[in-house]
Amino acid sequence: MTLYVNLAELLGTRIENGFYRPGDRLPSVRALSIEHGVSLSTVQQAYRVLEDSGLATPKPKSGYFVPISRKAPALPVVGRPVQRPVDISQWEQVLDMIRVSPAEGLTQLGRGMPDVNSPTLKPLLRAMGQLSRHQDMPGLYYDNILGVQALREQIARLLLDSGCQLNASDLLITSGCHEALSACIRALCAPGDIVAVDSPSFFGVMQTLKGLGMKALEIPTDPLTGISLEALELALEQWPIKAIQLTPSCNNPLGYVMPEERKRALLRLAQRFDVPIIEDDVYGDLAFSYPRPRTIKSFDEDGRVLLCSSFSKTLAPGLRVGWVAPGRYLERVLHMKYIGTGSTAPQPQLAISEFLQGGHFEPHLRRMRSQYQRNRDQMLDWVLRYFPEGTRASRPQGGFMLWVELAEDFDTVRLNRALLEHKVQIAVGSIFSASGKYRNCLRLNFAVRPTPRIEAAVRTVGEVIKQLLAQAC
Amino acid sequence: MTLYVNLAELLGTRIENGFYRPGDRLPSVRALSIEHGVSLSTVQQAYRVLEDSGLATPKPKSGYFVPISRKAPALPVVGRPVQRPVDISQWEQVLDMIRVSPAEGLTQLGRGMPDVNSPTLKPLLRAMGQLSRHQDMPGLYYDNILGVQALREQIARLLLDSGCQLNASDLLITSGCHEALSACIRALCAPGDIVAVDSPSFFGVMQTLKGLGMKALEIPTDPLTGISLEALELALEQWPIKAIQLTPSCNNPLGYVMPEERKRALLRLAQRFDVPIIEDDVYGDLAFSYPRPRTIKSFDEDGRVLLCSSFSKTLAPGLRVGWVAPGRYLERVLHMKYIGTGSTAPQPQLAISEFLQGGHFEPHLRRMRSQYQRNRDQMLDWVLRYFPEGTRASRPQGGFMLWVELAEDFDTVRLNRALLEHKVQIAVGSIFSASGKYRNCLRLNFAVRPTPRIEAAVRTVGEVIKQLLAQAC
Repeated sequence: MTLYVNLAELLGTRIENGFYRPGDRLPSVRALSIEHGVSLSTVQQAYRVLEDSGLATPKPKSGYFVPISRKAPALPVVGRPVQRPVDISQWEQVLDMIRVSPAEGLTQLGRGMPDVNSPTLKPLLRAMGQLSRHQDMPGLYYDNILGVQALREQIARLLLDSGCQLNASDLLITSGCHEALSACIRALCAPGDIVAVDSPSFFGVMQTLKGLGMKALEIPTDPLTGISLEALELALEQWPIKAIQLTPSCNNPLGYVMPEERKRALLRLAQRFDVPIIEDDVYGDLAFSYPRPRTIKSFDEDGRVLLCSSFSKTLAPGLRVGWVAPGRYLERVLHMKYIGTGSTAPQPQLAISEFLQGGHFEPHLRRMRSQYQRNRDQMLDWVLRYFPEGTRASRPQGGFMLWVELAEDFDTVRLNRALLEHKVQIAVGSIFSASGKYRNCLRLNFAVRPTPRIEAAVRTVGEVIKQLLAQAC
Repeated sequence: MTLYVNLAELLGTRIENGFYRPGDRLPSVRALSIEHGVSLSTVQQAYRVLEDSGLATPKPKSGYFVPISRKAPALPVVGRPVQRPVDISQWEQVLDMIRVSPAEGLTQLGRGMPDVNSPTLKPLLRAMGQLSRHQDMPGLYYDNILGVQALREQIARLLLDSGCQLNASDLLITSGCHEALSACIRALCAPGDIVAVDSPSFFGVMQTLKGLGMKALEIPTDPLTGISLEALELALEQWPIKAIQLTPSCNNPLGYVMPEERKRALLRLAQRFDVPIIEDDVYGDLAFSYPRPRTIKSFDEDGRVLLCSSFSKTLAPGLRVGWVAPGRYLERVLHMKYIGTGSTAPQPQLAISEFLQGGHFEPHLRRMRSQYQRNRDQMLDWVLRYFPEGTRASRPQGGFMLWVELAEDFDTVRLNRALLEHKVQIAVGSIFSASGKYRNCLRLNFAVRPTPRIEAAVRTVGEVIKQLLAQAC
């Protein structure tokens, strides 16, 4: 990466993290040039990047300033989930969302779709097309059960960014992060076992636990710093927990990045109670800060962290290419992967491998990160403008999901039903809980560029909420 | 299909089934023309097809005859598996086979790869390439969890050939037949449960039962007519069997087609004991007889048969597109599919759908069926020529797999180890048994056109077997 981009990302991170506050004067061009040993023009270029992404405003003759922050909704309150393991429900609500075809003309504000219309994805499509014209048709064969070797090598290289020193042989390719998580859970737990999860938590994992007859123990989670270590420690003392499953970086649905020292403390806790950690990092590469947050896996020394991820959020979910670094559980996870689907389709693996090898991933990520960051601010604005007063919202530090909390007795399942006639759908909050909590919450996707159509859909959600609230009075 | 092809396939079936025996005179051109109401030239064309595929020989002035059959190895003996439910092992042997990359230069005579080099597959590759150039990039999105609607409609149409009257809404798309089988087993059974299986049986199912902590009850199976209904009935009386899993049409690994009346009797048995049947039909469309054999599902009236299949054997396994018609268990199977992998990649689904819609599937199947039938005879010849005297072999009626049985105390795991230095691999028999039986058996793939390289590999297998036998003396 060029120097000025590096510098811009570093400064951007500091602004994002509150190191520089709204209204603060940013360091002078001269000071930064000396501090970082780069030329004045490099610093000027970096400031231009920050200006473009709305993170710095120039004032004539006084330098650059952090823009006065726009008003933002209050943060969601920390969940207080039931402190005992529960069976999971909510399948019908999940099904409502996942049985929709993209062709059906519904504006799906709730689903985990990234923006796949970026021109930076073109080399990937080209690679896929070329593979279909290959004489030896590599996309038609079974590949080996571990996954395409070249791709695993590329992923091992990528993982360095999150602090992981892994080899291709530590990795298994899966059909998306979904299969990675599922295989890990099946490798570690049996029916009736208890898994501790952050709360709210990814509904796919909730449903996996449900389908396998396992119980979820939901741990209270702070919307800025993640899972409560104190509550988790109490739970580990009280219950025979077989695994901890969480999404610590760019959490789904809350969007926080768990601070590094808390990640380390969580790992120490897992070591003390000898429990494995299933770490979902599927949004981790989309953190708005630079460098990207470290994974818990990167601190792991005894192979107890099973790192799951995929290209579904960074490239496209339709590729169904994910991976898992299962540490000491590799053989068991491999067996679970095999019995679930056999080997993974080679064509998308080969195409992604070529895309990575061609150096197209980093520029693509950079573009998407700044797009998602801008879109987040836009979405927060819309929520503030169109949703009822008192609406709370998360402050995502990465990814493209916003968590919105409405009045305590509001029911988003009813909201979704009412939205159907407007051809809009949100993700209802209750599917992110094992015990049907968060009925007054919803998840919004802000991946695609904010068009009038998207704005209209968000406004519609706000209006229907207000109508339902008025009816209730 | 044109008339003469229809007629050729009908006659071919009768010859295959022994209706006309080796040396028999076949009906005259005139007689057939009257019997089927077609022109003399149509019959002559049909006979030319039969001649080409080696099923009829013309004798000057006396008409067509069934060729004197070449000598064939004796049939394998009927397995007498242990008549109690057992835990499954053999994972290491399966892993030896599935961890090989196609690039590694090993001649894999054991793996379930079809021939993907047929020119009849070209429209499929073209469709895949075109999808990557589509403006709206349909391959990149999540599709709905049920699978691409157009493909499900096409599959419902295909299923008519096997006697099934199903709608798109009865079908779920899966990541290969492997996921279909796995989702069905998980939907029906819990750890500790007993599943009755044909024996030898597909190792993927064996490993699924193992991974899920279930027990397999292996039922003796005839190499020509399939699972013993008498033994199955006894087993159903004696054990709390939760499901029957079998591959009745073009069985893997034995290649038999279970006669229709036995399929009906099996279904009656399942009804009497109220047990569901998981029917693996993945090779069913590759039956050498015409029309293709009916599925058990086609006789099912109360939704107890879960039909699993895929395009892995008819088109290409790397596509990872399968399906399941789960009958009354649809909702449960759908949940199990969702928690395993989420939705299936849309791009290959869309490409296959286009291939089917374009009418390319039927000509492709026809070509592959006759290629596999010819290759079967070639492979039987080679086994007879290169393997030790007394070697037994199956008489596949479809698909592309030959089951070979060696002297009772022979160990094919040792054989495979010895073959490694010759860069040849077979599938060892023991992986087809839950209890490690069939150590003296192996499976050979005869899909690809018989080249000198393939012949050399088969000869090598024969020679190494003889060497090992000589050492044992």
